Amino acid sequence: MVYDIAIKDVELTEPGDGTLFNIGINGSTIGYVGTDPVEGKTVLDGRDHLAVPGWVNAHTHVAMTLFRSYADDMALMDWLQNRIWPLEARLDGRAVYWGSLLGIGEMIRTGTTCFADMYFFMEETAKAAADSGIRAVLSRGLTGSSPEDGAARLEENTQLYKTWNGAQNGRITVMFGPHAPYTCSPDYLKTVIARARELGAEIHMHLAETAGEVADCLKQYGKSPIALMEELGMFEGGTLAAHCVHVDEADQDILARHGVRVAHNPQSNLKLASGIAPVASMLKKGITVGLGTDGASSNNNLDMLEEVRLAAMLAKTQSGDPKAVPASQALAMGTWMGAKAVGLKDTGKLEVGQKADIVLYNMDSPAWYPRHDRTSLLVYAASSADVDTVLVDGNILLRKGELTTIDLEKVTAEVGQCLKEMTASAE
Amino acid sequence: MVYDIAIKDVELTEPGDGTLFNIGINGSTIGYVGTDPVEGKTVLDGRDHLAVPGWVNAHTHVAMTLFRSYADDMALMDWLQNRIWPLEARLDGRAVYWGSLLGIGEMIRTGTTCFADMYFFMEETAKAAADSGIRAVLSRGLTGSSPEDGAARLEENTQLYKTWNGAQNGRITVMFGPHAPYTCSPDYLKTVIARARELGAEIHMHLAETAGEVADCLKQYGKSPIALMEELGMFEGGTLAAHCVHVDEADQDILARHGVRVAHNPQSNLKLASGIAPVASMLKKGITVGLGTDGASSNNNLDMLEEVRLAAMLAKTQSGDPKAVPASQALAMGTWMGAKAVGLKDTGKLEVGQKADIVLYNMDSPAWYPRHDRTSLLVYAASSADVDTVLVDGNILLRKGELTTIDLEKVTAEVGQCLKEMTASAE
Repeated sequence: MVYDIAIKDVELTEPGDGTLFNIGINGSTIGYVGTDPVEGKTVLDGRDHLAVPGWVNAHTHVAMTLFRSYADDMALMDWLQNRIWPLEARLDGRAVYWGSLLGIGEMIRTGTTCFADMYFFMEETAKAAADSGIRAVLSRGLTGSSPEDGAARLEENTQLYKTWNGAQNGRITVMFGPHAPYTCSPDYLKTVIARARELGAEIHMHLAETAGEVADCLKQYGKSPIALMEELGMFEGGTLAAHCVHVDEADQDILARHGVRVAHNPQSNLKLASGIAPVASMLKKGITVGLGTDGASSNNNLDMLEEVRLAAMLAKTQSGDPKAVPASQALAMGTWMGAKAVGLKDTGKLEVGQKADIVLYNMDSPAWYPRHDRTSLLVYAASSADVDTVLVDGNILLRKGELTTIDLEKVTAEVGQCLKEMTASAE
Repeated sequence: MVYDIAIKDVELTEPGDGTLFNIGINGSTIGYVGTDPVEGKTVLDGRDHLAVPGWVNAHTHVAMTLFRSYADDMALMDWLQNRIWPLEARLDGRAVYWGSLLGIGEMIRTGTTCFADMYFFMEETAKAAADSGIRAVLSRGLTGSSPEDGAARLEENTQLYKTWNGAQNGRITVMFGPHAPYTCSPDYLKTVIARARELGAEIHMHLAETAGEVADCLKQYGKSPIALMEELGMFEGGTLAAHCVHVDEADQDILARHGVRVAHNPQSNLKLASGIAPVASMLKKGITVGLGTDGASSNNNLDMLEEVRLAAMLAKTQSGDPKAVPASQALAMGTWMGAKAVGLKDTGKLEVGQKADIVLYNMDSPAWYPRHDRTSLLVYAASSADVDTVLVDGNILLRKGELTTIDLEKVTAEVGQCLKEMTASAE
């Protein structure tokens, strides 16, 4: 048969010995992976390229790309109060749209095919995801600073769910986004949980990011953030928990028992001096751990390969075992475990029936030589600049390193203009 | 006047506000940096590029590029005894030459202009450095496995010094390379130190890499590796100490007192589960800390920007202070502090009178937007794939991403052939 797209003569990480495979794609789905010849209406030459599932960025705030390198090397509260919040107060939908598109362009160029986001003006991020063709799992950041504000934001998240969940051939889904235990009261969280249950939606939340958060929670509620959320019933309907840096054995057992999925953000956690999450331990307990970049203002890029590499590296020193989180497990965290973490069931593997979210790495740079082990080369040596081709949902979003759906020159000009207006009005 | 090379309209990290500078280069040296117009026999257009001093890779084993991804995620002794040493026993000069050239090609492409190396068949690495045009600080790895072997290796290092120190317009210098306290007896170390002093040479050595090394040294000699080296007089004539992961306050005070320069290898230390060096503390004590990749078999690439970024990130979590090792200090560690660490006096800064070792980053990728802070963008967001142009000693070794002195296709073919022969004879 003739597929919509055929990728010919491409290498895979398994068996990783240089065998050439062919991939056939029909519509949004992978229809064939094997060594038989395939024909396609569109043919991509895979020679000297490695095909892998696209990265899933399991936690970010993509519009914060606007604030990349605006303020670094600062204490968290100084950074928030004196630099980020004053600018965020001047954000509008237009800035969020262009900032989202800049971040999405960066993600596609670096091999990310799906991202889970929590921020505001999310309607605009949804439009940017729709326009660009990337897969997205969106949530409105919910804080209960006043009852009125909290209720209004919950309405926004509800509208976002009703308008966008399942949109674009299922490419966009929506979760509810209560920000964190220290910004949402237990009563507000109960309201959010009830609304999510009513709609059958899942929840995306920051949990146990810093030692200070855990200490404050213990002091205020006599429980860790994880135990408090369990008590509130947060974990009954599907939860993506970002960070989980400071989780002890008991916390990890709660996460495992309820099937809570974790988004580990290694670089952001290092940069903000939050610490190193016990990833090897969580994986041993059977917890699904995906990887995220967090926002570009605390990372400072959206390059998932950096996170995959760092997660593997940090886990070895954090656990004291150089065998912990080998390359193949880091690859899994960046792909199918990430997809599972953000609530997707048919994404993250190069298998028949999965969504055609595929990245082709060009292996011609020196870091890909010699070719002892392709998984190890990808995870430990390659660069995201080697990403040549990106498909999402069966559509080609990057070809020979060029974005097909985003005009980067226009995006950077619009971002510049938005920032000029925001900083002018802030002065 | 007309310079040999003029770089026009280029941005610098200081002031980093987008001001356009011109750089004039005469011979191997920077003759002008400023905003006046310059003319050159060769003119490089610097528009939308950032000029920085080239990275100094202060500790590597470049020929181990041959073993990149040959064996990962293993315990150190299993890795060495069952994977690395059997192959190393079959190394010859030809393999080291081509393996070195592959690693040098990778370093030039990723913006490294100088590397400090310790390995064997170093004559071949010297030839590769000479042929490629990169700056190199070479030492023969010295172990005293038997008195005869130890003496023969010391002779090799002596010959290397006599033949290559100051060669190629001073581009190649030579140190002595006693491997480590656990592979060299105190008597052998004294012999090495005496020979180095006799010739006026400096020393490059692995020190305090693992907790096990420190514990064993305390048990055997009643002193830490650092204190033992001080007692042997190791630190009197200029020392580059690689790793220094497990150094307590007293050790750090010894390093500071003797002006010992440290090569910090953050990624290798993570991957081998060795730990995280107390970099913020060492810097506060005034110790010169450069950065290194270590060999590609334990990293697994030679990309210095990764190390610069990781050093800044790790220092924050290691010290518990998000303000520790800000971007500007990480940049310093990767450039002029690294140059000082490897014993170079006129390299590592973009200033008149310094060697023209310069890298131009193309700022057109999404990670360089918006342009709030160029130093921060470089250290926290950019990719080594953005390296467009590399000069070493006033010669252009990379232009528009293309190597000018290395035929990469030939190098990878030769590396493949060498490995085929080595692995065949190992079976």
